[in-house]
Amino acid sequence: MTQRIWNFSAGPAVLPESVLEEAKNNLLSLGTSGIGILEHSHRGKAFLAVYEETEALCREIGGIPSNYKVLFLQGGASSQFYQIPMNFLTKDRTADYLVTGVWSEKALEEAVRFGGTHTACSSQDKNFSYIPHECSFSANPVYAHYTSNNTIFGTQWQSVSAAPGMPPVPANVDLICDASSDIFSRPIDVSKHAMIYAGAQKNLGPSGVTLVILRDDLVERGAKDLPTMLQYRTHAKNESMYNTPPTFAIYLVGLVLKWIKANGGLAGVGEINRRKAGKLYAYLDQSQLFKPTAASDSRSQMNVTFVTGDADLDAKFCSAATKSGFDGLKGHRSVGGMRASIYNAFPEAGVEALIGFLQKFEAENAKA
Amino acid sequence: MTQRIWNFSAGPAVLPESVLEEAKNNLLSLGTSGIGILEHSHRGKAFLAVYEETEALCREIGGIPSNYKVLFLQGGASSQFYQIPMNFLTKDRTADYLVTGVWSEKALEEAVRFGGTHTACSSQDKNFSYIPHECSFSANPVYAHYTSNNTIFGTQWQSVSAAPGMPPVPANVDLICDASSDIFSRPIDVSKHAMIYAGAQKNLGPSGVTLVILRDDLVERGAKDLPTMLQYRTHAKNESMYNTPPTFAIYLVGLVLKWIKANGGLAGVGEINRRKAGKLYAYLDQSQLFKPTAASDSRSQMNVTFVTGDADLDAKFCSAATKSGFDGLKGHRSVGGMRASIYNAFPEAGVEALIGFLQKFEAENAKA
Repeated sequence: MTQRIWNFSAGPAVLPESVLEEAKNNLLSLGTSGIGILEHSHRGKAFLAVYEETEALCREIGGIPSNYKVLFLQGGASSQFYQIPMNFLTKDRTADYLVTGVWSEKALEEAVRFGGTHTACSSQDKNFSYIPHECSFSANPVYAHYTSNNTIFGTQWQSVSAAPGMPPVPANVDLICDASSDIFSRPIDVSKHAMIYAGAQKNLGPSGVTLVILRDDLVERGAKDLPTMLQYRTHAKNESMYNTPPTFAIYLVGLVLKWIKANGGLAGVGEINRRKAGKLYAYLDQSQLFKPTAASDSRSQMNVTFVTGDADLDAKFCSAATKSGFDGLKGHRSVGGMRASIYNAFPEAGVEALIGFLQKFEAENAKA
Repeated sequence: MTQRIWNFSAGPAVLPESVLEEAKNNLLSLGTSGIGILEHSHRGKAFLAVYEETEALCREIGGIPSNYKVLFLQGGASSQFYQIPMNFLTKDRTADYLVTGVWSEKALEEAVRFGGTHTACSSQDKNFSYIPHECSFSANPVYAHYTSNNTIFGTQWQSVSAAPGMPPVPANVDLICDASSDIFSRPIDVSKHAMIYAGAQKNLGPSGVTLVILRDDLVERGAKDLPTMLQYRTHAKNESMYNTPPTFAIYLVGLVLKWIKANGGLAGVGEINRRKAGKLYAYLDQSQLFKPTAASDSRSQMNVTFVTGDADLDAKFCSAATKSGFDGLKGHRSVGGMRASIYNAFPEAGVEALIGFLQKFEAENAKA
């Protein structure tokens, strides 16, 4: 069997090995059913049990109140970018967007088609290297939308003492969160949100399924003259089975949720993630060669971005890393340098191995 | 290892065992990459190779001309039901729909939102038990839409001598086909269509990916004021990677296409499918207990629907079948009775086993 390497991919990303082993064991027969997990009808008892368990685990782990629907949709966060304003925004209203990176910008661009928009804050002036301290909301926004973690720029809304990381939004504003790159990586207060959505391929499972957590009144409030598939109520009424759902992706999300539960739930994985990122930032902060690109009060625990300041040396590092079994460290072109994506399933041992490799590279390439 | 049973599910459906074995072997490491197929970045070399091979195989097997795009989208056929009229139909134009079942009806219902529609034919008068012989098209339809195989009612547009099964549409009309339940189960003439689409979960792979084959001029012609994700040009320009595609589902489609190729391509699997369905219909035609529900000139090679004429006896049969390892034979509530879905990957030996079981049940339950 091939040795697994350290996979720092920004998504699709590494999954827990135990999850992959479990999936492997159920590919030709789910349990003793004699039918593989990929082959079960979504209307059959076997898959319905998988679905119900996955939804229940999601509610338990996320502390999702009973007045929220949990939906498993297709099309990724990119589809939510337009589906949200299509359902909730009208020409006579304004939606507020907190712009902290490329994905927030894309969400805003889609909203413009449907009604008024207001940029409540933006960190574009410094290439999105920080999370703004202050926001200015419009008078009566139909909702405020933010991106909890910025995959490309390595920034994240910070948790303050026990309070989950989120923007300072007035209590009466319906807050919508794109949590694609940090969903269930730390405690989250669902009740302070009107909606949370996330493509699964970073912290929850494979690509091809989007988790949507939506308060009941939003389900009811959505526009009624939309195509059936684009109305949240269609999926809410049919428990995500109006049409054939991505069954295998949902099954894998269920396995990952079990793994999160076994690791202490959101508090447990949150602590591990804090430790993993903490070790890496601690090394980078004292390094003479590498330096983090995100403002120190805005650092992401999921995507750690750093540079040497010399593009050629960055390239040399990435090439050497790949050869030594550290894959996917090349930074996004918008930032350059390196990016270590260390989502939930990325092992602490891999972070330690990376630090060792960084130290070795630094020693060999010490500045003159 | 658990014995696999005969899976007659209408979708998600049985996959070739060799495909499942191959996927199983690549779950923890795709080849020698050290990263599982689920965990590879969609932008990385390993997955791009998978993607390119899958697209090339699709073009080769389907005989897809170079002026067609091959896209792998999300949201199932149900999303195409609205996306097609949203892109191509306008208030001042008419689209023609050939209504041969529930899925055609749903496609038509979504089109009504966007412009004029005309029902070119319908078999609703006899509970969709036949394929109409005649169609009456409108003067200048923007397109004509048909469902090549009707999963629920067990009917299919018939192939006539060597000509692939399709409706008698005037040559100048842009023909769009929902081929979800018979895609690549027999030869198809792509060049006679403007667009062919299919959810993968019956003949091509798992649920969660939709194959869309689209002529270049339609890509260009589509409405330009739509959300980015809903414009076909977005996906055409970005080779289905504008956003993160369902990587594992695409990989599995590639494996299934290799299996189709190894089985003689569309001519080869078409011959096997004709033989499988032929054996089952031959038994049903001479049976004193069971009778097929579809008109004899409209029978599907994919979904064989039949009844005893006695709902209690149907239920007794389904229950006995399940106990004997024949799963998923209960018919859709719109038709009642039984449905044997015998897509590409359903083995001929399973059809023979079912015939044996039907004979045994008939002998034990002979009409007085």
